[in-house]
Amino acid sequence: MDASFCPPTRILLGPGPCNTSPEVLEALSRPTIGHLDPAFLELMNQIGNRLRRLFGTENSLTIPISATGSGGMQAVLSNLLEPGDAVLVGVHGVFGVRFAECARRLGADVTEVHSDWGTPLDCEEVAKVASGKSFKLIGAVHAETSTGVLLGAEGIAKLRAACDESGALLVLDTVTSLGGLPVELDARGVDATWSGTQKCLACPPGLSPISLSQRAMDVLGRRERPVSSWYFDLSLISQYWGSERAYHHTAPINMLYGLHEALGLVFEEGIDERYARHADAARHLWNGLEARGFEMLVEEPHRLFPLTSVRIPDSIDDAKVRAELLDVHGIEIGGGLGPLAGAIWRIGLMGQNANKGTVDQLLHKLDEVLD
Amino acid sequence: MDASFCPPTRILLGPGPCNTSPEVLEALSRPTIGHLDPAFLELMNQIGNRLRRLFGTENSLTIPISATGSGGMQAVLSNLLEPGDAVLVGVHGVFGVRFAECARRLGADVTEVHSDWGTPLDCEEVAKVASGKSFKLIGAVHAETSTGVLLGAEGIAKLRAACDESGALLVLDTVTSLGGLPVELDARGVDATWSGTQKCLACPPGLSPISLSQRAMDVLGRRERPVSSWYFDLSLISQYWGSERAYHHTAPINMLYGLHEALGLVFEEGIDERYARHADAARHLWNGLEARGFEMLVEEPHRLFPLTSVRIPDSIDDAKVRAELLDVHGIEIGGGLGPLAGAIWRIGLMGQNANKGTVDQLLHKLDEVLD
Repeated sequence: MDASFCPPTRILLGPGPCNTSPEVLEALSRPTIGHLDPAFLELMNQIGNRLRRLFGTENSLTIPISATGSGGMQAVLSNLLEPGDAVLVGVHGVFGVRFAECARRLGADVTEVHSDWGTPLDCEEVAKVASGKSFKLIGAVHAETSTGVLLGAEGIAKLRAACDESGALLVLDTVTSLGGLPVELDARGVDATWSGTQKCLACPPGLSPISLSQRAMDVLGRRERPVSSWYFDLSLISQYWGSERAYHHTAPINMLYGLHEALGLVFEEGIDERYARHADAARHLWNGLEARGFEMLVEEPHRLFPLTSVRIPDSIDDAKVRAELLDVHGIEIGGGLGPLAGAIWRIGLMGQNANKGTVDQLLHKLDEVLD
Repeated sequence: MDASFCPPTRILLGPGPCNTSPEVLEALSRPTIGHLDPAFLELMNQIGNRLRRLFGTENSLTIPISATGSGGMQAVLSNLLEPGDAVLVGVHGVFGVRFAECARRLGADVTEVHSDWGTPLDCEEVAKVASGKSFKLIGAVHAETSTGVLLGAEGIAKLRAACDESGALLVLDTVTSLGGLPVELDARGVDATWSGTQKCLACPPGLSPISLSQRAMDVLGRRERPVSSWYFDLSLISQYWGSERAYHHTAPINMLYGLHEALGLVFEEGIDERYARHADAARHLWNGLEARGFEMLVEEPHRLFPLTSVRIPDSIDDAKVRAELLDVHGIEIGGGLGPLAGAIWRIGLMGQNANKGTVDQLLHKLDEVLD
């Protein structure tokens, strides 16, 4: 029982985590220092700057929350919402459902606009529902990890206009986009977002980068009652990440080493080069799958590059193929969630795995398994 | 800006984090695998078993929460409490204050019994306040990290009796005790607890081992409304850690490698041997400090072994000494918090740092700085 754990060799081509970059793995193993050590405080400053650069924002409250991506969602919504607040969420997948549920748990009055899973969010419909009504926030998922659907810049612009009309904050889940697709918070007028580290940043799961605009900070400042979650109270957390350096909770030191390194690798490669690499790898995968007779769930141009959803033909046994890929070839791909369970595979090409060689390797092994 | 972070060499003798064991650092850097990989599910089983062994419990819900120690507190209290619930907290330091505040934020009706900081909790007084009244839970801090005071087995027994009388759950914060002092949840009748990884387990911060008794689970089952925090909802989290393996959030894979390894090291050494080592190192420190004319804040037998609080004589400049220890000698010790700021140092001897050689090194450097 006291033995060490030796992880099997895997190529992680599911919906995340992807394989962690070797440089990030090395960074995780550097000696722990104190959370108030001057050297660590400087590291925190650098992480904030790097996150701002990648998010495309000047928001001062741009920090990693000490929890996974869903914890970032919890933190953002717990701070922005008070019981009775009106919230409008566009839902077309698991993570939209989760967004709405999280807001509902906090006592918000949630209106959902549903689009079919696998199709883009109907932003016109969201705008129509918002029209003439007052909402505290309008939310959607930038990259719906359960379906592989992108919310494009045009759709975001429509949501922004709807927010302007109804006095709402625009809130986006950017878990699967950050580091693989342009997020551009400021240019697109996004007021609040949460992301994750285990997708296109190629860092292990465990942190959630978030960012809040001045408009969102103003909403926090006008709260009538304290945030019900002490752990996620941004007014306390921001005093540790800000110039006060007031202790709130002990930051996850080594995970932050990893995030800092992962962000450094993004800029070393070049942000645009990284996005192009994710796009090239995805197109290579789509071509390869289509050449083999597979159909994509999502129409272009609404397909995500970091995550491809492909329909499973009736003749193929979903579970058997995925198990053989994993057990025999060490390749993980994802199954469908909810109504798409058994109907699609979700193939992630994120971080270092977004390259044609890895795609060829997957296609080759898939041929073997299906042969 | 794209450079890697190179942490300075430190001996971490503050209130935590302590130095991470080299074996744990190595474990953190093992390749990431998927959170639903059969090999990872087996690792989760082992972590649960190891935590049960160290906590001294058969509680099935014994898991690490994907957040730091304070996040474990948030998770436990968010699940056990509903608005209006009566809660009684013994407070004699920062972490008791925090416990009460966290419960209050959740809408509980909180009664606090205060004892002076640096003295043991007056458990008789807690029992007196509880007598004849009905409380949902009675809580206290096992090892008060802000003062260095232990809540001994006798005190815990008094709280347990008070709980029995008022129908309350007994809830303990075991952040600074787990792995350095006996916790023995079942033998002592503790119903719920949260801990941290960066104290006596010598793992980086970022996870919070928690455990809930059947009595506590029954309280969860009788909740009238869903837990307001989706992220910390134990009814969902336990479906991932239980046999269902239903996805809730992506587990912090590499941090869990680290925790598994850290727990393995505890059993490799022997639990009792580890406790004895922490005790020996602390006594060696106390003797050394007293020989130099320092006074301890806390009377025996209420002193914590993993964390010693020592009074700073008026003639000594707190900030200057700590800065010189850190900057010149690479040794971190902690200052006081709240009313004890400037009045005490907090010296942690946790994990691998709990040994006489490290104590001698500290005392030698302290002599140099004070010379």
